[in-house]
Amino acid sequence: MSDKKLTGRVTIPTNLDIVPETIDILKRWGADAIRDCDGTEFPEELTKVGAKIYSTYYTTRKDNAWAKANPDEVQQCYIMTGFYTATGGKLEIPLMKGISSELMEVNTRDDIKRWWEVIDRTAGEVVPTDAWSYNEESGCVEIPAPAAFHDYTVSFLAYLIWDPVHMYNAVTNNWQNFEHQITFDVRQPKTHKFTMERLRKFIAEHPYVNVIRYTTFFHQFTLMFDELKREKYVDWYGYSASVSPYILEQFEKEVGYKFRPEYIIDQGYYNNQYRVPSKEFKDFQAFQRREVAKLAKEMVDITHELGKEAMMFLGDHWIGTEPFMDEFKSIGLDAVVGSVGNGSTLRLISDIPGVKYTEGRFLPYFFPDTFHEGGDPVKEGKENWVTARRAILRKPIDRIGYGGYLKLALEFPEFIDYIESVCDEFRVLYENIKGTTPYCIKTVAVLNSWGKSRSWGCHMVHHALYQKQNYSYAGVIEALSGAPFDVKFISFDDIKADPNLLDSIDVLINVGDADTAHTGGSIWEDADVVSAIKGFIHRGGGFIGVGEPAGHQYEGRFLQLAGVMGVEKETGFTLNYDKYNWEEHPEHFILADTTKPVDFGEGKKSMYALEGAQVLVQRDKELQMAVNEFGKGRSVYISGLPYSFENSRILYRSILWATHDEQELHKWFSSNFNVEVHAYVKNGKYCVVNNTYEPQSTTVYTGDGSSFELNLEANEIRWYEI
Amino acid sequence: MSDKKLTGRVTIPTNLDIVPETIDILKRWGADAIRDCDGTEFPEELTKVGAKIYSTYYTTRKDNAWAKANPDEVQQCYIMTGFYTATGGKLEIPLMKGISSELMEVNTRDDIKRWWEVIDRTAGEVVPTDAWSYNEESGCVEIPAPAAFHDYTVSFLAYLIWDPVHMYNAVTNNWQNFEHQITFDVRQPKTHKFTMERLRKFIAEHPYVNVIRYTTFFHQFTLMFDELKREKYVDWYGYSASVSPYILEQFEKEVGYKFRPEYIIDQGYYNNQYRVPSKEFKDFQAFQRREVAKLAKEMVDITHELGKEAMMFLGDHWIGTEPFMDEFKSIGLDAVVGSVGNGSTLRLISDIPGVKYTEGRFLPYFFPDTFHEGGDPVKEGKENWVTARRAILRKPIDRIGYGGYLKLALEFPEFIDYIESVCDEFRVLYENIKGTTPYCIKTVAVLNSWGKSRSWGCHMVHHALYQKQNYSYAGVIEALSGAPFDVKFISFDDIKADPNLLDSIDVLINVGDADTAHTGGSIWEDADVVSAIKGFIHRGGGFIGVGEPAGHQYEGRFLQLAGVMGVEKETGFTLNYDKYNWEEHPEHFILADTTKPVDFGEGKKSMYALEGAQVLVQRDKELQMAVNEFGKGRSVYISGLPYSFENSRILYRSILWATHDEQELHKWFSSNFNVEVHAYVKNGKYCVVNNTYEPQSTTVYTGDGSSFELNLEANEIRWYEI
Repeated sequence: MSDKKLTGRVTIPTNLDIVPETIDILKRWGADAIRDCDGTEFPEELTKVGAKIYSTYYTTRKDNAWAKANPDEVQQCYIMTGFYTATGGKLEIPLMKGISSELMEVNTRDDIKRWWEVIDRTAGEVVPTDAWSYNEESGCVEIPAPAAFHDYTVSFLAYLIWDPVHMYNAVTNNWQNFEHQITFDVRQPKTHKFTMERLRKFIAEHPYVNVIRYTTFFHQFTLMFDELKREKYVDWYGYSASVSPYILEQFEKEVGYKFRPEYIIDQGYYNNQYRVPSKEFKDFQAFQRREVAKLAKEMVDITHELGKEAMMFLGDHWIGTEPFMDEFKSIGLDAVVGSVGNGSTLRLISDIPGVKYTEGRFLPYFFPDTFHEGGDPVKEGKENWVTARRAILRKPIDRIGYGGYLKLALEFPEFIDYIESVCDEFRVLYENIKGTTPYCIKTVAVLNSWGKSRSWGCHMVHHALYQKQNYSYAGVIEALSGAPFDVKFISFDDIKADPNLLDSIDVLINVGDADTAHTGGSIWEDADVVSAIKGFIHRGGGFIGVGEPAGHQYEGRFLQLAGVMGVEKETGFTLNYDKYNWEEHPEHFILADTTKPVDFGEGKKSMYALEGAQVLVQRDKELQMAVNEFGKGRSVYISGLPYSFENSRILYRSILWATHDEQELHKWFSSNFNVEVHAYVKNGKYCVVNNTYEPQSTTVYTGDGSSFELNLEANEIRWYEI
Repeated sequence: MSDKKLTGRVTIPTNLDIVPETIDILKRWGADAIRDCDGTEFPEELTKVGAKIYSTYYTTRKDNAWAKANPDEVQQCYIMTGFYTATGGKLEIPLMKGISSELMEVNTRDDIKRWWEVIDRTAGEVVPTDAWSYNEESGCVEIPAPAAFHDYTVSFLAYLIWDPVHMYNAVTNNWQNFEHQITFDVRQPKTHKFTMERLRKFIAEHPYVNVIRYTTFFHQFTLMFDELKREKYVDWYGYSASVSPYILEQFEKEVGYKFRPEYIIDQGYYNNQYRVPSKEFKDFQAFQRREVAKLAKEMVDITHELGKEAMMFLGDHWIGTEPFMDEFKSIGLDAVVGSVGNGSTLRLISDIPGVKYTEGRFLPYFFPDTFHEGGDPVKEGKENWVTARRAILRKPIDRIGYGGYLKLALEFPEFIDYIESVCDEFRVLYENIKGTTPYCIKTVAVLNSWGKSRSWGCHMVHHALYQKQNYSYAGVIEALSGAPFDVKFISFDDIKADPNLLDSIDVLINVGDADTAHTGGSIWEDADVVSAIKGFIHRGGGFIGVGEPAGHQYEGRFLQLAGVMGVEKETGFTLNYDKYNWEEHPEHFILADTTKPVDFGEGKKSMYALEGAQVLVQRDKELQMAVNEFGKGRSVYISGLPYSFENSRILYRSILWATHDEQELHKWFSSNFNVEVHAYVKNGKYCVVNNTYEPQSTTVYTGDGSSFELNLEANEIRWYEI
């Protein structure tokens, strides 16, 4: 390794009044890019320091004059009211009940009889359009003669009269005296034309900017607030706010069938992450991503034409540009930047194909919530860095960066020092890793209804947000984000299209609750898919099921791979069967490194082992972990696996066991699970990394099985030549 | 009350060699009936003591000569094999794998292509009969060309070559050197004729017998053993062993459609308690109970003709004679006797309509498992008596009795004393209650798919057997068994047939897991049923939901009464919705008597309250209890309610609250929930009963709301005049 100190690959924020300090930080951190200060003039001195300058660009807002002049092209959103019960006589359904009237406005401009849907949810039938009307004055849909004690909902279109992210920022920061930014819809003809001109104008007016950071393109993920301006609904992957009659008519033409609001509304579930996607929703996604990519490409082309780089922020108005969708590459973006919360969100960025570089924005943001007297930004910074580093070592982002008010961070010299060390550490590891793929022990594929399109994000309701209901499942994804495996995300559709796809995989993982998109739901009634999966395992493939894998009640089984896993769920239907298989086998290979009773997180109730399966853990006759052989294949069942270093090791061993490769354990391996070993064979390097905040001792095994003892400082990463 | 000591209403067992002691016990316990000694000559002296003599009579076994001479009329059973995966080439499915070959024998006598069914469970399709064959030698069904990696099952008929109850007794008691009793099928023509003659002969040969105690009629509830003679499957209500081609052909004629084995097999779930019954299974039950009743009546008629009483044991070969089915009355039985494990099983007997008297066999049985040195039969006896007494006070059985070896009990003089006091106590309470209905505060109806036919037994897998998966639900039924309510059991079919039925009810209770017969499953897609229930509540009815009431995913709701209850389950589909309603209201009327955190037993995960509902208890943001108003009606949601005196009080208060009758609380009421008050207004009596084994103090409220303080001894029951 060269002795020359590496520089670059770091982006910093700044403030107007700290120009000299910014220059000092640029040097200390070796930074080579600066974010502009939103809404103010960028300091001229900083344009001359040789660093790239990023400018945030809002495609769909910050021009209320345009939005107000073109109210017909304000972005729309499909909304479902709550359920209203007919209790006798006319039923009135207030459309905006529970929704902030500052956020949305009912769209009566377009034909409501065409674009709205009133549904009798008790009968499961659409109410004929002549059996209801809308009373503008009361804001209610009126059903003069509803069926008694049936529940009704109304699906309708509303305008986004306040950009949800702008509203979120305003409410969170308690802004006063400002104008609500209206979201306009770039997909529509007038705004489309206007937007391209506006972009050219912006670039012309900001000659010092090198990188246009799009935040983002055209459609905000679903984000609603209630009358108290509290968050009401959030879906980071939600498509509800990507609609308008203008584009829905195009959609109809493309697919050749009539659009129904229910395709978006989905019973009020809005096709969220957990819903097994319908054919119509998948058609709509496909249509949107093609159309959005086409339009985004127009902007990127202009950016390039005018000599700038185009960078996309991963989030906000990103619907249709999800980077793991095939069309993404066609946009021609130079870069993607996103916020890093953990290993999964790091991979969400670093795995993006088809861009020149990726950048991760690290925590903490330089905001007063952390940078106040008594705050401990170093601790937050360390946690964020060390958590993400595992994933960086598998697939590095190309740049790191920080956001917020640099001025605040300057008050914490220890933090400034720590980030300096992070920047250096990042550049060294980037240098050591670059151009190679780290050594992968196995290829594992996470199987769900979303597949590649929601790689790494498949359990996220909102970006990196903790959910009690799924942390035990998201833990598997987090463990994989920094583990020495080639990780793929595949969908049931992929298997249906090409069963041979499975031949390239060592271990298939299915994790989540029954009847959700994470485990597949009714797809398990599809004999082609099921027999392809069973065949793969029977021929020697590995299977790891977590939670209620393959869970869907059908033909005598709740878990459709019960025969493979040797595990079934007691739903009451098999209470009559005596269950004798409860003996634990704590000495199993998979459990060999555990130091305490396994933490299954939320776990699952009512699971039991079938005859022949080997129970690893049961608690109070609720099965938690079991292994089974199926033909030449092996299966591991785990009730839940929240992320921890110890659980990560359990998953690691499960993968080895499932592939009959127990003897491969001592290869690029640390006996202490708090420490991980990553090898970059092509580059002749490997590193040993302490993932904890305390010193650790371990035995390190290299690729040929030889070993040595090693003591590491807290957080330490140590590099070796092979 | 008369000073004269009451006698009678008690049955005792005896042994051959303790005739004087039996006579002594008869006197001390005031007994007036003696059970004969199975398999031995009844002592002549005892025929002269003036007590009635019961003789157990086995309708379907204890005549192997007949069974062997008529192998075609041995009772048959439908069995499904396990799931077998086709992994390439011919698939062989061993029929008897997992089933004791001493218990059953494959029936190849009848046309297997007509009566068996091979099912591709992966495709959900019946395999054509020409695509499989049976290899008698290997005992396997062979499928020469199965679909790769599809799972197959075989449904077939087997003979019961060892009576399951006889086998159970033999295995449990480790009998050696005896002949297996074969079960013959009285429904078939030769055995039918033979049985009637056999009965006449038996009665003729046992002139001293007064009561023929049928154990039982024709079809054993489903009870299977595996190759290790361990219990494999038990369903106290199971119909699988009530079949034969002979009767199935009659069934086909009656219903007018072709019989399929799957109607009985039900994917291997055998239409158990938890399965929402199919139309075909309900048709089959109806057919069976009519045919069985007809045939049982023939035996009862002969019994009467020959001057004896006919008593039925509640259990064993009782399929088709379940006493809450309408046809039961037509059999003409004089009495039913059953084993009493708790309040629910007491009511299972005492509520039987259409017999002259009912008798409860109390615990402990006089067997060595309890009556051994160091054993504490008094404790067991007390627990059994006190637990059942609550229910007796609501609806008394007419007689009590004990079983086993009297000789063993004689060794425990304290036990003999205690039972003497029980017999006296029983007679006093019977005298005080007789001819009247106790005061009922409310009419409550338990609503499930089985309704009246499985009154009190709706959560039983086996008679009174504890199940971890349902004790929190069975607790509600147990609480009701001794509570001052008029308790009905109604089915969804009842509501469908007559929605006005609900008008006679104060509170509707739905308790159990989603998609089971206990909560109704897909019936919640039936708009007529749903709107009838919602209408009932909206007009002022009460609703109590426990577990996953109305749980069935449909049209945007998991709990189909979510709007009524203000409660929904998080299945992942609503994770995107923010949930703000977590504030507890511990001061609520329903919780006023709780002394500690409520015990919800297994409870439920992932429940949450909708806006507007009042949360009573949540734990770690998992809702446990909530109340809601719906129109003029009120709903109470509880996640689980295992039986305890404290939980019984919670249910009591829930019922009052749900009916807006909080002010009725202090009416025939004890402030201390360990003590209950039962009033028999017509008879001018009421009692106060201590349900615990410790002394209790309480304030007793009478019917006019006046009150007095009372101290009760352990277990004490105290009678008052109104």
